[in-house]
Amino acid sequence: MKIVIIGGVAAGTSAAAKARRNNEDAQIIIFDADQDVSYSGCGLPYYIGTDIEDREQLVPRNSLFFKQKYNVDVFTGHRVLAIESQAKTLTVENLATGQQFSEVYDKLVIATGAQAVHLPIAGSDKANVFHLRNVVSADRIRRQVLEAKPQTAVVVGSGFIGLEMAENLTARGIRVSIVELAEHVMPALDGDMAVYVADYLEQQGVEVIVRDAVTRLEGVPLINKVVLKSGRELTADLVILAAGVRPDVELAQQAGIELGPTGAIKVNDRMQTNIEDIYACGDCAESYSLLTGKPYYRPLGSTANKMGRIAGDQITGGNLTFRGGLGTGIFKVFDLAVGQTGLTEREAEREGYQAVICHIIKPDKPEYYHGQELVIKAVADKASGRVLGAQIIGKAGVDKRLDVLVTAITFGAKVEDLFHLDLAYAPPFATTKDPVMYAGMVLTNALQWDRRLITAAELKAKLDQGEAVQVIDARVAKQYEAGHVEGAHNLPQEHIRDELAALDRKALMVTYCNKGVTGNATQNILINHGFRQVLNLSGGYQQYAKQFKQKDSEAGRA
Amino acid sequence: MKIVIIGGVAAGTSAAAKARRNNEDAQIIIFDADQDVSYSGCGLPYYIGTDIEDREQLVPRNSLFFKQKYNVDVFTGHRVLAIESQAKTLTVENLATGQQFSEVYDKLVIATGAQAVHLPIAGSDKANVFHLRNVVSADRIRRQVLEAKPQTAVVVGSGFIGLEMAENLTARGIRVSIVELAEHVMPALDGDMAVYVADYLEQQGVEVIVRDAVTRLEGVPLINKVVLKSGRELTADLVILAAGVRPDVELAQQAGIELGPTGAIKVNDRMQTNIEDIYACGDCAESYSLLTGKPYYRPLGSTANKMGRIAGDQITGGNLTFRGGLGTGIFKVFDLAVGQTGLTEREAEREGYQAVICHIIKPDKPEYYHGQELVIKAVADKASGRVLGAQIIGKAGVDKRLDVLVTAITFGAKVEDLFHLDLAYAPPFATTKDPVMYAGMVLTNALQWDRRLITAAELKAKLDQGEAVQVIDARVAKQYEAGHVEGAHNLPQEHIRDELAALDRKALMVTYCNKGVTGNATQNILINHGFRQVLNLSGGYQQYAKQFKQKDSEAGRA
Repeated sequence: MKIVIIGGVAAGTSAAAKARRNNEDAQIIIFDADQDVSYSGCGLPYYIGTDIEDREQLVPRNSLFFKQKYNVDVFTGHRVLAIESQAKTLTVENLATGQQFSEVYDKLVIATGAQAVHLPIAGSDKANVFHLRNVVSADRIRRQVLEAKPQTAVVVGSGFIGLEMAENLTARGIRVSIVELAEHVMPALDGDMAVYVADYLEQQGVEVIVRDAVTRLEGVPLINKVVLKSGRELTADLVILAAGVRPDVELAQQAGIELGPTGAIKVNDRMQTNIEDIYACGDCAESYSLLTGKPYYRPLGSTANKMGRIAGDQITGGNLTFRGGLGTGIFKVFDLAVGQTGLTEREAEREGYQAVICHIIKPDKPEYYHGQELVIKAVADKASGRVLGAQIIGKAGVDKRLDVLVTAITFGAKVEDLFHLDLAYAPPFATTKDPVMYAGMVLTNALQWDRRLITAAELKAKLDQGEAVQVIDARVAKQYEAGHVEGAHNLPQEHIRDELAALDRKALMVTYCNKGVTGNATQNILINHGFRQVLNLSGGYQQYAKQFKQKDSEAGRA
Repeated sequence: MKIVIIGGVAAGTSAAAKARRNNEDAQIIIFDADQDVSYSGCGLPYYIGTDIEDREQLVPRNSLFFKQKYNVDVFTGHRVLAIESQAKTLTVENLATGQQFSEVYDKLVIATGAQAVHLPIAGSDKANVFHLRNVVSADRIRRQVLEAKPQTAVVVGSGFIGLEMAENLTARGIRVSIVELAEHVMPALDGDMAVYVADYLEQQGVEVIVRDAVTRLEGVPLINKVVLKSGRELTADLVILAAGVRPDVELAQQAGIELGPTGAIKVNDRMQTNIEDIYACGDCAESYSLLTGKPYYRPLGSTANKMGRIAGDQITGGNLTFRGGLGTGIFKVFDLAVGQTGLTEREAEREGYQAVICHIIKPDKPEYYHGQELVIKAVADKASGRVLGAQIIGKAGVDKRLDVLVTAITFGAKVEDLFHLDLAYAPPFATTKDPVMYAGMVLTNALQWDRRLITAAELKAKLDQGEAVQVIDARVAKQYEAGHVEGAHNLPQEHIRDELAALDRKALMVTYCNKGVTGNATQNILINHGFRQVLNLSGGYQQYAKQFKQKDSEAGRA
């Protein structure tokens, strides 16, 4: 048996290693047009910054390693030009010699990965304009940074690669501007969470420009100016184009392999394409959502690794199948961790769920043990009570809460299940009730006990439209005076029991405090006293101020 | 309706707060003999050390807070002397005045907590001998540390309070010895994991004495010597007795309330005792295992909080019930995090499971991103494939893996489910395959694909008994020479395919490398070449050396 794998990064090498573990006798060959194999694509931005100084840390394995360890033959610098699926042969070019040859296969695995999207921008062919795609391109950017010592950079696109590049260029002393076409940075997040990232980037000295696009890059021989659609001009000694990636499917397409609706190679849960004995995995292939069952395209190292292992198992007679993903992603930008899993509020609504959401703003550990605030936006399905997704932002403990929610969602957790988790508690690690438990409690109260929430955007829209809303600020007077929702009455929670007579029982009421807890307590008191329509502002005044730019310097601290 | 709660720490105040959220009209009273309420018992050791300097951080809430926020009357310094359950009254003493009075209740919640076990050791009444139980006792220890400036301390008991005290006294510059009666420190862990803690404590300068007990404390007026059963004598300017806690059940017992097999108050999943309208929760009450369904006693702040909330809900007409716990616990000792959930190997066997275990020794993040090694011991049930428990030790990322496993176990995860989790990956947070996924993969291979493991203890026993075992050290020669299992043949994995003819196909074979991965690869090669009885050493040579004290300085680094 002869197994040929096209592509030797995450998915391809995973497939090879798993195939070998299952089968000692098969001949296993990897072709890769690139010079580097089995590298960490996710580590590239840190290699341009100051976190990873040594290229070998990024590319710890070479062809010799694969030969000795797995008895796998890796041919780097070899591009597969064509797949002849009827004959089960490939046409391969040795890029160093230009020589072409034919190679037969019994099982073929396509793991060609993804390419950076190339925007058709005038000037993007200049030598100080870069896409980050592989180790060679990272080498080039790094060299430019170290040798030309750029003072300013423009990063186009604010997905995680764009933001990681912004961080790592800043770490090199470069002044960075980010240009994003969408409404907000990190378009994959809901806007009410992306605002935390945008504010934080600006605190770190990164200029954030949204709802704008690059029309041309100017300067000869090197770019020194970026012209935006709005007419703004930015000086730039370095330009990074990070407008996303697209699956590298040309070879597959030419061979008649079917693509899915996302434009990536269509595979079943065994990583099989429509052509017998041809498999695809990693960033060139489509995966699907565990929640909706629908195909999606999420090029992530963790998924590529998983799909590769499944392909390697299947081609050697195993029965491992892909169970669907949650699109879980996390990244660090400066000291902020930003993670998401499952569906955002926007995605949940697009999928037809009646989404119920909450914002939990809590320290990751007790404040007396140096806890730092994190924000969880959790999304649940009103009909089934199932948790659908979460977005989490904070300086510590974000990855833990995300992975707990990933695990819970995978097993179909309902909102009421989260409180019952026997999570690990000790002051250096968590609060007595973990923020994940609070998310479950708040959503359960909203779904089952009529402790409904209103989002900042919903409240703002009502106020802007002049709807009759009785807004109660349940904080102490000092906090209220430092900034409050327009038109809110200050009625501190400890006095509310004495003031019930003065309130209008017929009006829609919205309660709030700083982050949500006292607002909920106030809501409870009102509902227990027979008030009917009482909503608590999700995330409290802190969330409202974040979204609508009110002064929260005083309130945020209290 | 009048709700009376006895005890105002974690469970009692949680019950009060939840009752009030549900019911505005009920009168709610808390009696506590102590002066402090709603404090963090888990923070006490850090208050004696240097992490928490301010007593108010530990006790942020007082009676006024509960009155204003929850309309709950908290009477500190009030001891309940008797419960008259027929009359539904209590006899209460105001400790400040000595005055006794009677109080009626409609619903009674007992949340009397736990007491430190008092060992009958001669000399333990001296003024420099302490139990850590509440804020007042922490105050006393702290004062002694700051004023008497002890140079040496003996901590009796090595549960988490004992170890946290060892850390915090060391942080104050005190030389600490720990005396533990059991076979190893942290008796709640399996011995093969406790050895990591013991080694680490010694690296931090803490002397660890196991299988020994204190017979008497000597010195007048203060203790200056601790005499052990073995005859050893330790100098000590300070003695901490941390031999565990027992539920405070005297009051309940006198009132005819039934205790469970653990000696704590027996409650059902609604926190009801055997007497109508009397509930119990927190450290005085029994909880039960989600896995075995059997009662257990695990006095933990997180469980107390949960039980309190359930009691508060039930007494006000709610339907929240306790679903069983996993006995999840975590603590930090110096920079090491030690966590466990579910069943240990020993407990699983005692419960009649055929336990299959693995040791995963992996960095929490990529090594190029400053990853630090953690060790997961996972326990699964051979019959059902379910994950039963985990113990995790390391310097970073322990709490995350523990909480993921808590969540997985709660939902009945089988070993093969762990690989499929779409956990969050990016270099600052995790490796492409998370250590939790490796645990699932290794256990799945052991259970379903005959890639069986042998523990270090099992191998050592076979070797000691002279059984015919062909042990293959699959590492490079330099590592082998630095230390290896006695009698092992060095056969580096990259050469094994050439050496198959020389091996005895009939003998039981054990393969190993440093941490397990290459040992498994070697095992795969042998099994794929028709060898029948091939076991891989769980945790590799690193685990073996840890347990059997071989020199691993060289091997551990490679």
